[in-house]
Amino acid sequence: MSAPASTTFRAIDVIRKKRDAVELTRAEIEGLINAYTRGDIPDYQVSAWLMAVVLRGMTRPETAALTDAMLRSGEVLDLSSLPARKVDKHSTGGVGDKTSLVLAPLAAAAGVTVPMISGRGLGHTGGTLDKLEAIPGFNVNLSVSDFRRVLATCGCAMIGQTAEIAPADRKLYALRDVTGTVESPYLICASIMSKKLAEGIDALVLDVKTGSGAFMKSENEGAFLAELMVETGERMGKQVVALITDMDQPLGSMIGNALEVVECIDILRGSGPDDLRELCLELGGWMLHLGGAAKSVAEGKEKSAQLISSGKALEKFRHMIELQGGDPRVVDDPKRLPQAQHTMEVRSAKAGYLTSMQCEQIGTACVILGGGRERKEDAVDPAVGIVLHKKVGDPVAVSEPLATIHYNAEAKAARARQLIESSCEIAAAPPAAKRPLIHKVIRGPL
Amino acid sequence: MSAPASTTFRAIDVIRKKRDAVELTRAEIEGLINAYTRGDIPDYQVSAWLMAVVLRGMTRPETAALTDAMLRSGEVLDLSSLPARKVDKHSTGGVGDKTSLVLAPLAAAAGVTVPMISGRGLGHTGGTLDKLEAIPGFNVNLSVSDFRRVLATCGCAMIGQTAEIAPADRKLYALRDVTGTVESPYLICASIMSKKLAEGIDALVLDVKTGSGAFMKSENEGAFLAELMVETGERMGKQVVALITDMDQPLGSMIGNALEVVECIDILRGSGPDDLRELCLELGGWMLHLGGAAKSVAEGKEKSAQLISSGKALEKFRHMIELQGGDPRVVDDPKRLPQAQHTMEVRSAKAGYLTSMQCEQIGTACVILGGGRERKEDAVDPAVGIVLHKKVGDPVAVSEPLATIHYNAEAKAARARQLIESSCEIAAAPPAAKRPLIHKVIRGPL
Repeated sequence: MSAPASTTFRAIDVIRKKRDAVELTRAEIEGLINAYTRGDIPDYQVSAWLMAVVLRGMTRPETAALTDAMLRSGEVLDLSSLPARKVDKHSTGGVGDKTSLVLAPLAAAAGVTVPMISGRGLGHTGGTLDKLEAIPGFNVNLSVSDFRRVLATCGCAMIGQTAEIAPADRKLYALRDVTGTVESPYLICASIMSKKLAEGIDALVLDVKTGSGAFMKSENEGAFLAELMVETGERMGKQVVALITDMDQPLGSMIGNALEVVECIDILRGSGPDDLRELCLELGGWMLHLGGAAKSVAEGKEKSAQLISSGKALEKFRHMIELQGGDPRVVDDPKRLPQAQHTMEVRSAKAGYLTSMQCEQIGTACVILGGGRERKEDAVDPAVGIVLHKKVGDPVAVSEPLATIHYNAEAKAARARQLIESSCEIAAAPPAAKRPLIHKVIRGPL
Repeated sequence: MSAPASTTFRAIDVIRKKRDAVELTRAEIEGLINAYTRGDIPDYQVSAWLMAVVLRGMTRPETAALTDAMLRSGEVLDLSSLPARKVDKHSTGGVGDKTSLVLAPLAAAAGVTVPMISGRGLGHTGGTLDKLEAIPGFNVNLSVSDFRRVLATCGCAMIGQTAEIAPADRKLYALRDVTGTVESPYLICASIMSKKLAEGIDALVLDVKTGSGAFMKSENEGAFLAELMVETGERMGKQVVALITDMDQPLGSMIGNALEVVECIDILRGSGPDDLRELCLELGGWMLHLGGAAKSVAEGKEKSAQLISSGKALEKFRHMIELQGGDPRVVDDPKRLPQAQHTMEVRSAKAGYLTSMQCEQIGTACVILGGGRERKEDAVDPAVGIVLHKKVGDPVAVSEPLATIHYNAEAKAARARQLIESSCEIAAAPPAAKRPLIHKVIRGPL
């Protein structure tokens, strides 16, 4: 192997500096990312650099410079022709985490523009695109001009990442995935923020999950990443707020793509489970406030509740589905969504209180049913999933149903049932303290 | 990029473990090295692992396992048919460091077998192969069977690395060179020891240099590497001793390939500079002791001095040169070695004492003259070099010659002269304390 030809920029110098914990300049980080995106630096140099970043960390200016370089590696949408403020929400992912489908139409109904670019599910967590595709006909692969048209027409649009957005992130993520360099808050921050800021937004609400169903199991880890993303976003001139929210049990009651669409419609109709409604109102309050549709978060929450009770948010959802090629009748008749052939109850073996749920295991049970994917290339069954009948703290009688499994294959259902049973802990006494839904709100100085 | 296909062995797991500072098993290290040597693992995974090793370090068992896996990636010479004990010496490299050319024939004259496989010069330090090739006709590229024949005939042979020896090291070294992962004592240890132990030796004397002309500038760094190599060698059943020796000024007086051969012949004739003679006797004492030719190191030193004064060591050198195709007459008539066309004196600008020499700069001056190489593919001029007339601590008069430059190109000589001038510090008072030639001896329990 010979060193790659390079005249002005030497990757080896940047690798050595990071290895020796010397702060990199913006020009060095830009040079590395640009050269890698162009294919001028080989993977083996970048993977050594990534490992040095994982083990040495990054300063805040380095993190912002990396985010900026990745953002500018591709197209940055210019939505300045749309008059309203552009606000998006991003979640770090969890089980039953379906707020995007509620929040995009809700904020749009308040006059905020929501240009939402989302991902697919991987591992135990679901993905927004998979949920949207449970709606017959819904097209998440809009061209940029169609995306812009839907946004201009109804104020929100929800699509998958295009090849033009942050190509450096796509290349880096593929390399991180096979070199043990995924787990770095600095790299996670740059990956998320570069993609989100490429949407051309003014403000961003981050939902950073913590608990047994989150990637970040401890609140401290979650708070560290949240602060990093808030500061990075603000260094780049955007308003960013992060809510650290609970993912120690699934959010809401339904898990699985079509089931989660059903639950979102419930919320938009003013019903649905309390925790999901509460989180949607909280995040909606922030989106409306940062989007200029409410003077305070409290006012934003109140307005959000009104937009639900008036049916305007649901109407917006129906309109977006229609504009993106989906069947809008699912909103009134959820039975038009894919349905699993069979259901099976998971019943409690004893009486007592549900004291905890191993949230990641429940997510894995849904993957086993076919509702998620273990590898990127796996197909997803939109119909299968799990409906939970109990939340942590609820009393449980002997033989009372804890969950209903919606399935298409008997053997898979049996495995999912075992996982659900082992993930629910039933004890004689109720749990000492209830975990709050919102752990912390992190804001920058802007 | 997709993850490379693998069924039993997963490189990603080994990378993650090292990243998280978990000790790797011998099987994991072997699996990684074997798969990489076969080409079953891509460079980008190995470079991430190497960076994790640089920043996380290795335990002693991990270092021994890595050395062993690299050693067994290629051919290990079986010299058991030769009755004498096989002993080699390895130096970490310095300026004017030419002891190999004295020690191989010296130890062979005592009845020890010395199967020496050496390298070329790179950067400011010289290389044994370049020095040997200054002897007209000398062939360092013997086949393994010719190597064995020379060894059997005269007890010592000196060649370059063959493609069959430690191929994992060659592949890893090329990758380390371009990924900022050279500077790790664990990787340096495994690289040196895997190649040396492939020679089929029973014992090894290590000369670990410390000071301004060494790769390891501080004595602590040198001692750490030395202890690592001694322990690693002994874990592999070999007797290993390491001497930490001074490289704060060039060793001996002559620097440059042909000039260094001249100085070695001087030493083998019983003359030559004191420091070089002292170090050769010390290292020779150890080689004879470990090679079973002396009961103690002191006896080995005494025998070494006798083998020089009796002319037997010089006779052995002459024989080896002849067997390897070189012109043995150089031993009696050093003028047969390549000679530079011109010489130029470097004179002191003031009177006082020579208090220090920037040893690395003097080595670089020799590279500038053409006597060394900055890149592996550079050719070397055997004739050029520098003869120093003063050692640190010596008094110096105004205009007295500090050094003589042997050169073939005026412009290069001018640059070398500047470097030599700036590297010699002349002060009114002599330096407070003289640095010892031997800083420390490190032995294992064997």
